[in-house]
Amino acid sequence: MVIGFGIIGQGFAEVILKKEDALKEKYGLEIKVVSISDITGTLADDDGVDLKEALKTIQKNGKIIAHPKATKMSGLDAIKSVDADIVLEVTPTNIKTGEPGLSHMLAAMENKKHVVTSNKGPLALEFKKLKEMAEKNDVEFKFEASAGGAMPLISLAKEALSGDQVTAIKGILNGTTNYILSRMTKEGCSLDQAVKEAQELGIAETDPSYDINGSDTASKLVILANAIMGNDATYKDVKIQGISRITSEAIKLADEDEYVIKLIGEVRNGHLEVAPRLVPKNHPLNVDGTLNVALLETDIAGEITIVGRGAGAIPTNSAILSDIISIWEKRYR
Amino acid sequence: MVIGFGIIGQGFAEVILKKEDALKEKYGLEIKVVSISDITGTLADDDGVDLKEALKTIQKNGKIIAHPKATKMSGLDAIKSVDADIVLEVTPTNIKTGEPGLSHMLAAMENKKHVVTSNKGPLALEFKKLKEMAEKNDVEFKFEASAGGAMPLISLAKEALSGDQVTAIKGILNGTTNYILSRMTKEGCSLDQAVKEAQELGIAETDPSYDINGSDTASKLVILANAIMGNDATYKDVKIQGISRITSEAIKLADEDEYVIKLIGEVRNGHLEVAPRLVPKNHPLNVDGTLNVALLETDIAGEITIVGRGAGAIPTNSAILSDIISIWEKRYR
Repeated sequence: MVIGFGIIGQGFAEVILKKEDALKEKYGLEIKVVSISDITGTLADDDGVDLKEALKTIQKNGKIIAHPKATKMSGLDAIKSVDADIVLEVTPTNIKTGEPGLSHMLAAMENKKHVVTSNKGPLALEFKKLKEMAEKNDVEFKFEASAGGAMPLISLAKEALSGDQVTAIKGILNGTTNYILSRMTKEGCSLDQAVKEAQELGIAETDPSYDINGSDTASKLVILANAIMGNDATYKDVKIQGISRITSEAIKLADEDEYVIKLIGEVRNGHLEVAPRLVPKNHPLNVDGTLNVALLETDIAGEITIVGRGAGAIPTNSAILSDIISIWEKRYR
Repeated sequence: MVIGFGIIGQGFAEVILKKEDALKEKYGLEIKVVSISDITGTLADDDGVDLKEALKTIQKNGKIIAHPKATKMSGLDAIKSVDADIVLEVTPTNIKTGEPGLSHMLAAMENKKHVVTSNKGPLALEFKKLKEMAEKNDVEFKFEASAGGAMPLISLAKEALSGDQVTAIKGILNGTTNYILSRMTKEGCSLDQAVKEAQELGIAETDPSYDINGSDTASKLVILANAIMGNDATYKDVKIQGISRITSEAIKLADEDEYVIKLIGEVRNGHLEVAPRLVPKNHPLNVDGTLNVALLETDIAGEITIVGRGAGAIPTNSAILSDIISIWEKRYR
């Protein structure tokens, strides 16, 4: 079942429609979406919701309740009453309370449903509680999409680098600020001008403060620290400095010394920090535009860097899909 | 059992000694090396070879036969007669015949032993035969270390990006040539000067022709194309052009237009090619020094780039270790 039918939820429906045959052929996996909920109601069908129709409804009316078969049942009630194996929680991130995502996830686990999510808030605030609830109820809790978008950082660290110990993580985890800083570097424009341009292109939201003040990066850093390095951090443990005081003059000075200024999140020895940092131009962390990047320091492989799209309806669903496939392989095959 | 006790084999012994406790704690895995063979003989012990003693022998005498308990048994005979679950085949790459690695791997599979290897030759020449032999004998065949060193490309594509289809791979798969081109770019020196410097630093071998003529990159490209994209290519299918004709003038001209010249291996639509290519300076494929990089184009995640050390005794064993852990998790737990 899908809880939340915004950009990510709609992208999920599109990806499932596109990859239906490939998933069946490659993994013997048939994904049946038995319900879709948003803040207005729930569209449920035990035989599988018609995803094309659901997408048509949301794209035309902006709310699932506009579908003739939808009811006013809340997402939380759907989690409790609809029969499903996996709850895909993709409601908007709330970094203050984690709600409604937190209640959704806890209810799903209590009802013995696996949870897959891209929602940062609940994890940045209550990671430990969620982990323990998943263990207690013997369900999977997967959240690759919540930190890094299409960059499969958690799976990279835990599976592909299974023999390594990750000793530090640093990276650019927010595409909006990276776009803004890249424009300031290339065009020599001011922060305000770059923000305005990003908003016009749809890269920054109307209120981009969570990006610019470093909150978004901090949430993702908490998730990576906990999931990959076994930390027990929450959002309030992160020392945060955003990019609001970065001037075009500072960027120009850095440029003359062959450096760029990037908003870097870093975790090392239990210390979590988000701050603008000087990065040498020829360093793997120097990636441009809206790209995200993360560098893992490990004891055997050394430094491994991964670059990818940190957001977006379709790329984010790459991570969601691999989480679902991993549950399928582990639990149902 | 370990077949081949050069740089990679010795690195394996060192890593096992270092990670013994961590592997037991994290995975319940105890790796017991029951034999080590090199071209001079075999040191076998059913209770586990003393790795420290074996390392001491090889570092002092350069051959395993110098160990008082070693016999003249060949690696091939050890594969046939010593009781073991996994054969780690790390003899030197031979791109002409694949031997002795090819015979080692086939014999291991026939004797129902899983194979883990970093040896490119047999895979670049006889991938299909090896795959089929592994399937026929129901054993695992793992070779993450053979293409990309510490970059876990195969696991990244097959596990972390399990929902994606990889449509193209391009990258810098040889650290020696990347070092040479990076020096030519930075210092404006000639190819010969850069090669000489690389040799003095131990980055290039006395005869670096397999690096410079593109053969090494081509071998790795074949392995990635077959393993990740399901191709059925061999070494002779690759169109190869090395870096021997790259001049400092060409590099300077590229530099003026904000490009660098890199030796790129690329597979797309069944076409495999190795050639010097112009890469924009701010592109993720522009990595410096001995670093390797690979960019995967996929249908959902978009472009995912990974950067890491492509060679080296310890980094390469990151990939070997994750292959062993994956066999342990899949077959013995």
